[in-house]
Amino acid sequence: MKNHRQTFQQDNKNRGRLLITCPDQPGIVAAISQFLSHHEANIIESSQYSTNPEGGVFFIRIEFECPDLESKKNVMREEFDTIARKFSMDWKLFFVQELKRAAIFVSKELHCLRELLLEWESGDLMADIPLVISNHPDAKDFVESFGIPFVHVPANKNNRQEAEQQQLKLLEEHDIDVIILARYMQILTSGFVEAYAEKIINIHHSFLPAFVGAKPYDRAFDRGVKIIGATSHYVTNDLDEGPIIEQDVKRVNHRDQVEDLKKNGKIIERSVLVRAVKWHIDDRIIVHENKTIVF
Amino acid sequence: MKNHRQTFQQDNKNRGRLLITCPDQPGIVAAISQFLSHHEANIIESSQYSTNPEGGVFFIRIEFECPDLESKKNVMREEFDTIARKFSMDWKLFFVQELKRAAIFVSKELHCLRELLLEWESGDLMADIPLVISNHPDAKDFVESFGIPFVHVPANKNNRQEAEQQQLKLLEEHDIDVIILARYMQILTSGFVEAYAEKIINIHHSFLPAFVGAKPYDRAFDRGVKIIGATSHYVTNDLDEGPIIEQDVKRVNHRDQVEDLKKNGKIIERSVLVRAVKWHIDDRIIVHENKTIVF
Amino acid sequence: MKNHRQTFQQDNKNRGRLLITCPDQPGIVAAISQFLSHHEANIIESSQYSTNPEGGVFFIRIEFECPDLESKKNVMREEFDTIARKFSMDWKLFFVQELKRAAIFVSKELHCLRELLLEWESGDLMADIPLVISNHPDAKDFVESFGIPFVHVPANKNNRQEAEQQQLKLLEEHDIDVIILARYMQILTSGFVEAYAEKIINIHHSFLPAFVGAKPYDRAFDRGVKIIGATSHYVTNDLDEGPIIEQDVKRVNHRDQVEDLKKNGKIIERSVLVRAVKWHIDDRIIVHENKTIVF
Amino acid sequence: MKNHRQTFQQDNKNRGRLLITCPDQPGIVAAISQFLSHHEANIIESSQYSTNPEGGVFFIRIEFECPDLESKKNVMREEFDTIARKFSMDWKLFFVQELKRAAIFVSKELHCLRELLLEWESGDLMADIPLVISNHPDAKDFVESFGIPFVHVPANKNNRQEAEQQQLKLLEEHDIDVIILARYMQILTSGFVEAYAEKIINIHHSFLPAFVGAKPYDRAFDRGVKIIGATSHYVTNDLDEGPIIEQDVKRVNHRDQVEDLKKNGKIIERSVLVRAVKWHIDDRIIVHENKTIVF
Repeated sequence: MKNHRQTFQQDNKNRGRLLITCPDQPGIVAAISQFLSHHEANIIESSQYSTNPEGGVFFIRIEFECPDLESKKNVMREEFDTIARKFSMDWKLFFVQELKRAAIFVSKELHCLRELLLEWESGDLMADIPLVISNHPDAKDFVESFGIPFVHVPANKNNRQEAEQQQLKLLEEHDIDVIILARYMQILTSGFVEAYAEKIINIHHSFLPAFVGAKPYDRAFDRGVKIIGATSHYVTNDLDEGPIIEQDVKRVNHRDQVEDLKKNGKIIERSVLVRAVKWHIDDRIIVHENKTIVF
Repeated sequence: MKNHRQTFQQDNKNRGRLLITCPDQPGIVAAISQFLSHHEANIIESSQYSTNPEGGVFFIRIEFECPDLESKKNVMREEFDTIARKFSMDWKLFFVQELKRAAIFVSKELHCLRELLLEWESGDLMADIPLVISNHPDAKDFVESFGIPFVHVPANKNNRQEAEQQQLKLLEEHDIDVIILARYMQILTSGFVEAYAEKIINIHHSFLPAFVGAKPYDRAFDRGVKIIGATSHYVTNDLDEGPIIEQDVKRVNHRDQVEDLKKNGKIIERSVLVRAVKWHIDDRIIVHENKTIVF
Repeated sequence: MKNHRQTFQQDNKNRGRLLITCPDQPGIVAAISQFLSHHEANIIESSQYSTNPEGGVFFIRIEFECPDLESKKNVMREEFDTIARKFSMDWKLFFVQELKRAAIFVSKELHCLRELLLEWESGDLMADIPLVISNHPDAKDFVESFGIPFVHVPANKNNRQEAEQQQLKLLEEHDIDVIILARYMQILTSGFVEAYAEKIINIHHSFLPAFVGAKPYDRAFDRGVKIIGATSHYVTNDLDEGPIIEQDVKRVNHRDQVEDLKKNGKIIERSVLVRAVKWHIDDRIIVHENKTIVF
Repeated sequence: MKNHRQTFQQDNKNRGRLLITCPDQPGIVAAISQFLSHHEANIIESSQYSTNPEGGVFFIRIEFECPDLESKKNVMREEFDTIARKFSMDWKLFFVQELKRAAIFVSKELHCLRELLLEWESGDLMADIPLVISNHPDAKDFVESFGIPFVHVPANKNNRQEAEQQQLKLLEEHDIDVIILARYMQILTSGFVEAYAEKIINIHHSFLPAFVGAKPYDRAFDRGVKIIGATSHYVTNDLDEGPIIEQDVKRVNHRDQVEDLKKNGKIIERSVLVRAVKWHIDDRIIVHENKTIVF
């Protein structure tokens, strides 16, 4: 991982990303691209979307390459603020070299954790992972074999508040940007969720909105569905109702018992979660009114 | 179609199918295969399934080729009855030459009807279609261009009973075996449904059990799903809760408005319904406790 | 169709599209967006791609809404030419109201033709179709039932030159922009292909580059593949080697005989071809070095 | 793994499987099922297929549960031999408790190896893996962390014979039933392949028969395909021409560079290989004339 990280940061030292949401009107793209052109930035990738060309909401993601970006960071932020005010923009400017810091929460099912760490190790999931937190000790050895600290916080229904205090302290200490719930089987309190709004990514083991809540595979089996699914979404205070980032499905048949659905489901869960996390880390997602725009 | 029909019947004059459900126990397959062997029948395809090898329910579908089947029909039925009693079998014996008689019900959306009739015309959906019934006149020309009678029964919420009387009379007159609801937008009364139990196939325009009921695409759009679906199922008196026969899905994204979901959905709806109908016609489906075994 | 056409043209009377290919360098997007902003055009959708941010080739597709577009057409073309020269652009400006004119070529297999005409009739394939040309008379009734002229040009190996003379004359008379080979089973001469470079869309019944040439399903069966496919591509003078626009696949198994592969294949062929044609008509495709960029 | 293994063997101590290939004729199923019934065996799953009902080749796979199977093994083999002679059967009788012994061959790309070992550890790939052989030392630590011996045999073009001598000795010592080439980048000699006919499973990183041979992703990129694939097959002495077991695909687009194809491809490669290996281990595959029947 260390070499991958270094190479990536070197390769991306002049790479920036702009994510913008604002009321639609003519001239937005012109203003942004002039700003970038003025700083000698070359637009590498640009995607935009309007809910409605006549008076809707406008979204854009621009990835650019800008010589000497390091030295221009502050100036660019300041100058762009003027444009942003003019167009009432909600905006974020990311410098790709500054890696996101992710904490993974896990319980006893380790397939999603494994996939995340293997992708991380091979350099395909480019973030820093300062710690893994679990309410069970099972994953300890596996996590530590990657050189990542593992913290056992024995959270359960009865000690939710105290456990979250400890977790929040850890998250702050490690300056965490994004929390990945890799089949973490505890419900978070509303205070916790609000502290990390649009920054907690969950994987739900069903094709939402089918089978919200507990034991989705058992219920899928009982209903006799012919396709099962998994859904990655941002966590909000409505259980399994947050903005959907990604979904995928797999065909099953009458021979598949609940155990088979679970095994097949694991394969979808891990790939759906990893895709969602990568999009988040690549600043590809804008949340708008309980939906996601994924550029 | 006429030539396809004749060729098919000629090719299948010695072809039979056995569908059996019974309590599982050793010796079932031996008994059936001895019976078939005794009649010089060659097993062409055989599929079986047990809910649980120790004391569960056993299902089997056998397709066989039997010389001079025509002349043996009655004897075979009588003789098999003895075996069936011994093993407490629920069974059906079909002769492939005797085509199923299907009635199609449709409203204003014609894509499923079109697909069914085009498949029928090309000989890929091998059934007789003595009539199409609709509560709107829109499909008249199209249906009649295939030489199939079209009956306009203007059913709606207020005249349900009378409309169904007329429909039931038509179904009886034409000796209908199976009813295909090809986006027929009227709810059927429980009496109607019970008269054709496990013989009414519906297409619902969502990935059930998500979005049961009306306007599924609008609700899928509101929820921001990343995949839409369609579900074909047998109709029971619980709305959209009947045994699922087949489902399929299609990826969508944030750019897709409700209209786009509908357009994309049509492509899935028609193929899912056609697959389900073909499996029914090929006697591939056994219904068991609100689920389907599809062999 | 007529109503759909009228509504579409009314809805899109101010809608334009720019497609550009040029050497990559900073300032391109700024120049284009300033130009559009100057004409009070609002960018509705914009997609871009560079083969390589440092000195590669840059591609962009912009869809915009511009008040009084009708009256600005010529001025815009002239003014944009100045920008285009500066950046050495290869560019096209389309006005959405001006529908493309498509000719469909077909032989005996009609499933692709059917899908195209049904999509056209329902307003989902928004082009004008002034004629269908076939080397067999089979499709005549079906085509004419849509009010579209059908011309039987009995082309074969031996009369290729004369047949193409007649076809080219028809294409010119009807001012055809794009030719759709909907399972047209004749090879075109190089002269014909060059006359309509990047304007002839073919559907090949295999997952290219597997099974180039004749009888792909027979060869797929012989090889024992577990998945079959279809490929839509622009026609060049290298058989089945032109730029691929779209592909799709379907799972098969050992039970599927050649006939089953063909039946299953039809379903993919028709949907792949229709998607490719729609992207072409929506000006979503840029051809670059025997590949397509599909925005 | 140890606990999974023990539980599995306990659960399957009475479970057997019959795989049969023979000329088709009436009475085969009757003979087999009578034989099983006579031994009080209950048929759990049965699948059959004929290349042609009239005089073709007949294939069947039967999984059965038989009380005191342990004590009946020899008798059953002897008795079945009589039936087999009568019908000219090519047959195998497997006892599920007797696990297959697999050797994994790997080079530098470890994603397939990882997936295999993780599935093995979780009890989802139920075989014994007595050793992993590699021509590079890279996988040593990972393999040994599972308690599996790792042997570095530095095979290359120039020492093929000697390297294979060493490998064959290891395979014999460990009584290996099946060899899994998990992205093993050396070509095997014909002697080696013949020694393990229908027992060497390879993963090729393309959708065969497209891109046979070296560097398939580079060639897929050059051709501009819109879908990439992976193929698992039994190894024969015709490079990448052996019987295909399983294939899968993934959509790509013009943005994907060769490196992206490789990353995306890894996800398909590993899942396709694992599926193929599981089917082999579950005795689901019959090879017939360079094709597989997968029951």
